[in-house]
Amino acid sequence: MEFKVNSKELEKILARVFPAVPSRTPMPILENFLFDISNGSLTIYATDLEISLKSSLNIVTEENTKILLPAKLLYDVVRSLKDTTLNFEILPNGRINLTTEHGQYSLSYLDSEDFPDIPSFPDKSNDGEDINEISIGGSDLKYALEKSSFALSKEEMRPAMMGALFDFSGEGFRIVATDGHRLVDFLRKDISVDFNEQYIVPEKAITVLLKLLDERDVKVYLSKTHISFSLNDIELISRLIKHKYPDYKSVIPLENEFNLKVKTKELHDVIKRMMLFSSTNTRRVKFSVDNNNLQISAEDVDLGASGKENILCEYDGDPLDIGFNSSYVNDVLSHMSTEDELIFKLHSPTKAVIIYPTKEKENQDLMMLLMPVRLNN
Amino acid sequence: MEFKVNSKELEKILARVFPAVPSRTPMPILENFLFDISNGSLTIYATDLEISLKSSLNIVTEENTKILLPAKLLYDVVRSLKDTTLNFEILPNGRINLTTEHGQYSLSYLDSEDFPDIPSFPDKSNDGEDINEISIGGSDLKYALEKSSFALSKEEMRPAMMGALFDFSGEGFRIVATDGHRLVDFLRKDISVDFNEQYIVPEKAITVLLKLLDERDVKVYLSKTHISFSLNDIELISRLIKHKYPDYKSVIPLENEFNLKVKTKELHDVIKRMMLFSSTNTRRVKFSVDNNNLQISAEDVDLGASGKENILCEYDGDPLDIGFNSSYVNDVLSHMSTEDELIFKLHSPTKAVIIYPTKEKENQDLMMLLMPVRLNN
Repeated sequence: MEFKVNSKELEKILARVFPAVPSRTPMPILENFLFDISNGSLTIYATDLEISLKSSLNIVTEENTKILLPAKLLYDVVRSLKDTTLNFEILPNGRINLTTEHGQYSLSYLDSEDFPDIPSFPDKSNDGEDINEISIGGSDLKYALEKSSFALSKEEMRPAMMGALFDFSGEGFRIVATDGHRLVDFLRKDISVDFNEQYIVPEKAITVLLKLLDERDVKVYLSKTHISFSLNDIELISRLIKHKYPDYKSVIPLENEFNLKVKTKELHDVIKRMMLFSSTNTRRVKFSVDNNNLQISAEDVDLGASGKENILCEYDGDPLDIGFNSSYVNDVLSHMSTEDELIFKLHSPTKAVIIYPTKEKENQDLMMLLMPVRLNN
Repeated sequence: MEFKVNSKELEKILARVFPAVPSRTPMPILENFLFDISNGSLTIYATDLEISLKSSLNIVTEENTKILLPAKLLYDVVRSLKDTTLNFEILPNGRINLTTEHGQYSLSYLDSEDFPDIPSFPDKSNDGEDINEISIGGSDLKYALEKSSFALSKEEMRPAMMGALFDFSGEGFRIVATDGHRLVDFLRKDISVDFNEQYIVPEKAITVLLKLLDERDVKVYLSKTHISFSLNDIELISRLIKHKYPDYKSVIPLENEFNLKVKTKELHDVIKRMMLFSSTNTRRVKFSVDNNNLQISAEDVDLGASGKENILCEYDGDPLDIGFNSSYVNDVLSHMSTEDELIFKLHSPTKAVIIYPTKEKENQDLMMLLMPVRLNN
């Protein structure tokens, strides 16, 4: 059978689906795109068994077929072509010929039988399983995930925390990410749903989704086992993490009574310098706050180097010394860099600190939390 | 003792000298900058024993001293500062205090005694050793090195070819680079010198020099053992490679009588695609030329993939099939990409091919050479 596609249109689709192709896998079959041609539509799938991506384009052909094509080679060939018509000719002998005006390329294809099944949403075949469904603006979802995903745990010992919690309730749509040292809690109050459910979405799905999101609306479907993000021209389906998410609410202190207000960029510049002086073992920086002066200091005993800087702040509490991991402070400030001013809510050198922007955006609450580290002096 | 410098002026100098600081070295002392303060001038040196960089700025101080400061830490601290005045206070106890308006930083310094000596040019102390000297436009030297340095050998077994040959003679100033598979021969005819000498300049010196060169003139000093490039505000000194350069002239065929003229970009686009199909072992592409048609083809038997493309050319020779390593063809074309059209001078499938632009720039000859690879079919 034969069909024609424009090289640039095909390139666009392959580029969007390619991120689901695993770069190293014990299952070589996953290194292929599944080309599913049926009813005048070419749907291209890729999966690493955790996430799957699929996208379609219309083609002119009478026949239906499914084949597997080597993903990296095909993608590299297609993106090396100029804007041209690319003719696909699928031969019965396991070979496919691609032809352009000046070039001819021949690839092997595989049978699609052994390719893993990919769940589909909304699915007629799931005989009555509850599928929850919401719609959200692409830029809103992108903003929420950009602010929170840095705090996801990398530790395989705590699999639940390797994903972001999507928490739907009467309050709205909440996204929580934490690795036990820092936590981000983002609430979108204007998304009302008629179900109370928690889902844990793996980091890989979030990373890939962040590259696909634009300002257009996203339809989100949720089953007990999978989440689907349906964008305009591509669908991302991911397994959910089937572990119990920790009771994050119990970690968030409610009575931190001391307020420290600082300019985000000013503090961030100081932290970046103090990171150079913090010991490579502890990465510790010390915040010493008293009246309207915040002193930040760090020392690397092995290197024989130390630094301290003072910045102006507004502070309404008792004088306090508190230590943090400078990388974690840096992460928080990097992800708050769009905010002019921040409030740090403090209580004591051993209690979690809460950080939020002085001006919250409409219909949303953004809060970050940092665990302090011990100052032994 | 104390002195003040502007942070951005110091950053500029540290940035230029830093590339000579080795990132991994069995001699930790080389991980320092040498600060040499004498007669109101601060000269900063760094060396990895192969190359050295030095640059100076004027400071206000009465005293003279030499100390070693941790290069990476100092550079990182200085470039993290805003445009500000930085006060250096060198204490007798091995510590140095840096102070800005809001910050104080303390570093350890080392004694300069154990730092290696760095040769200086022109040197009064070299008791009559011959120093050759030329001056060359910075952009001319940059052009020559950019066109040739990709062909330098990475094989430690052939140390002479790990450097570029600087060949001074009645013909002018010639730069040659080769790894035995490809060769670049660049001649600047308008630089006349009164000496006949060959020098081999190591790859590291050329890489660092390329980042320093701009349109301003460069003074080049040459002793038997070292080369110095003196730019406006920085000096690069490098050891020369003390091995005999191979007789490259014997490799260059004089009687390749068949001329193949192609458009550089058109051929390059085809080669980039054919690289995808060339076998990962041999990287081989085949050129088949006949009349005004050049067919380029490649095959990866393991992958079961192959490709061929045809482009228009001008050719005055017998029909010919010849094989090349596609990466080497790609390198040549990348470094000829400023040229619209190229001539390939061919003779037979086993003889070196010569490539040059159809339009040579005034006062210079640029020639590249590619060894073919065997076609076993």
